[in-house]
Amino acid sequence: MVSPRPAVAALAAYAPGEQPQGGGWVKLNTNELPFPPPPAAVEAIRKAAGDRLNRYPDPTGLAFRQTAANRLGLKPDWILPGNGSDEILTLLIRTFCRSADGRSDSPTGTGDLIASPHPTYTLYRTLAEIQNCPFEPVPLKGDWSWDWDRVEDVKQRAKLFFVPVPNSPSGTVWDAETLGRLIPDDGLLVLDGAYADFEDGHLGLELLEGPRGESIVLTRTLSKSYGLAGLRIGYAAARPEVIAAMAKVKDSYNCDALALAGGTAALNDPPWLEKTVEAIRAERQRLIDGLASLGFVVEPSGGNFVFCTHPDRKHKGRFDFLKERRILVRYFAFTNWPDGTPDGLRITVGTKEETDALLAELAKFSG
Amino acid sequence: MVSPRPAVAALAAYAPGEQPQGGGWVKLNTNELPFPPPPAAVEAIRKAAGDRLNRYPDPTGLAFRQTAANRLGLKPDWILPGNGSDEILTLLIRTFCRSADGRSDSPTGTGDLIASPHPTYTLYRTLAEIQNCPFEPVPLKGDWSWDWDRVEDVKQRAKLFFVPVPNSPSGTVWDAETLGRLIPDDGLLVLDGAYADFEDGHLGLELLEGPRGESIVLTRTLSKSYGLAGLRIGYAAARPEVIAAMAKVKDSYNCDALALAGGTAALNDPPWLEKTVEAIRAERQRLIDGLASLGFVVEPSGGNFVFCTHPDRKHKGRFDFLKERRILVRYFAFTNWPDGTPDGLRITVGTKEETDALLAELAKFSG
Repeated sequence: MVSPRPAVAALAAYAPGEQPQGGGWVKLNTNELPFPPPPAAVEAIRKAAGDRLNRYPDPTGLAFRQTAANRLGLKPDWILPGNGSDEILTLLIRTFCRSADGRSDSPTGTGDLIASPHPTYTLYRTLAEIQNCPFEPVPLKGDWSWDWDRVEDVKQRAKLFFVPVPNSPSGTVWDAETLGRLIPDDGLLVLDGAYADFEDGHLGLELLEGPRGESIVLTRTLSKSYGLAGLRIGYAAARPEVIAAMAKVKDSYNCDALALAGGTAALNDPPWLEKTVEAIRAERQRLIDGLASLGFVVEPSGGNFVFCTHPDRKHKGRFDFLKERRILVRYFAFTNWPDGTPDGLRITVGTKEETDALLAELAKFSG
Repeated sequence: MVSPRPAVAALAAYAPGEQPQGGGWVKLNTNELPFPPPPAAVEAIRKAAGDRLNRYPDPTGLAFRQTAANRLGLKPDWILPGNGSDEILTLLIRTFCRSADGRSDSPTGTGDLIASPHPTYTLYRTLAEIQNCPFEPVPLKGDWSWDWDRVEDVKQRAKLFFVPVPNSPSGTVWDAETLGRLIPDDGLLVLDGAYADFEDGHLGLELLEGPRGESIVLTRTLSKSYGLAGLRIGYAAARPEVIAAMAKVKDSYNCDALALAGGTAALNDPPWLEKTVEAIRAERQRLIDGLASLGFVVEPSGGNFVFCTHPDRKHKGRFDFLKERRILVRYFAFTNWPDGTPDGLRITVGTKEETDALLAELAKFSG
């Protein structure tokens, strides 16, 4: 066989959460919304499907960019649409981070440093490995707060510092002052807002508009809060020169006509989002209360999920127990986190019926 | 500003063909089908839009892969779906070609060589530049045939050799024996079949199934022959070990639920494709005859477009003249092609009415 790049040959493929394609599952493992997307989005998609699908989409995604910009009070040239915000993460790395590929003597000796807190979304590390960039996790303290000595050290060297707010799997929300202290000396702080809408859709905006704004990138996805995981649409918000550099690297037609149409319609329906976020927050509280009554310790969460542990530490047992009953949650074991919790469960906020089913089964678990 | 990678900073962004978003244009510039896609595809998209769009799509795209594999008489693990075949091209480069980024002293001194014929689809060069790989065009002879001395030289060094069949902008179709002579010694021959369906949907398959099959990749898109440019769906067909390496590099959810559903439905309608290809071929002949009667020299074409020149060489003048009349074709000027034609027009096969409008306006051109 023709050899792949050594970095790819060495790579363990990223394993996304399970996506059973058949029905009959209570699916609380990948933080999808349990409700359908805004009816206006479905309508726009159906219309676009009959419109001019034989024509290429607008490569600049102008209508989408205008709408997303309006929502944040920015101009359209501050926005780059992506095929989900995962594509935005890849584009950031390809735009800003030199690979170490050219150094045959030292595969990771050069290349630009990519950092993220630990524990967090594990895709950051995979994407760094694909690009053959050095990756450095910054271990959080056991209470999910920052270890500032470690931050100060990595800030001097990181080209990209990926920080999700709210964080996953913990749900932690750091305030703007804390986030401002994370900006690399000569790099970008990427505030991954996949779950921002559940806390505050404007999260990070004051940093982007502040004096260090040229070092800030916000990412957003419509996969979570808008119930559009199947559509693949997200975006970056950043200074125009950052967006222009990323636009050079993206495929011309990275977003399809249906995603642009559906995404634009969804963003144009703020009342729908408000109502949905309210429902998720109420159900999140019910889930937290239910878990607490079963003896779980639940982290405060700004997302549409909660991270919980049980004093008996039988997290893997509970995960398997639930899966046997066709309830999927996410089991996380954290390696190299000496001062933190070794493992736990992340549970998506579902419908009332799903929460009830989950709690009922968990109550039966005896270990 | 935080500096992008030097390779990105130096990059002139790829300029796709113009995509005016308003109506009123006769659009013969980007080889889209002038007809809507298969009704079954539109129906499948509309159904999927109401189904479970709040859920992530199948990251493996299994149903699509099964259908595409069936069409070619292959197994599903020989197929990788992509967000258009442009994404497949990017994935091939990221999987197989080491970037020269790590060598600060010699930005393109190392890195794996990417080659293509010249003239051809100019995106190959842009994608090589994004990855910071050396790129080498292999100039065709003036009659669009291969210069075998140049081929023998580049075959020894190329990691990826991109060859579109039919070629663009010429429409040239090289036979299997000729293509077999292009396989790199230690690299992949990528037969880009964006336009294959207009000639023979199985183009290249005998090479993939032949003794050097591990060095062959076929790419396909549904953007052209299936009238689905707006949907972004294409695929690679290659040996399973090649597909497995590429799958490590792709985003988990690179193809959305609507593209997978619509693409699967389209591929499941061979009679629609047969009828459509027949209509395009008939109209192509009418276009060729009409251009010839206006004094043009037209290249034989296996695609849904033709490349033509006029003895008076006023190609740019005709392009501008047509554009003023809201008819878009593509003007190509070929730099560094000393033995070939300096420039010409590539014209997409449109509807009868579009061909008539084009020919009527061209007849009025006086230079």
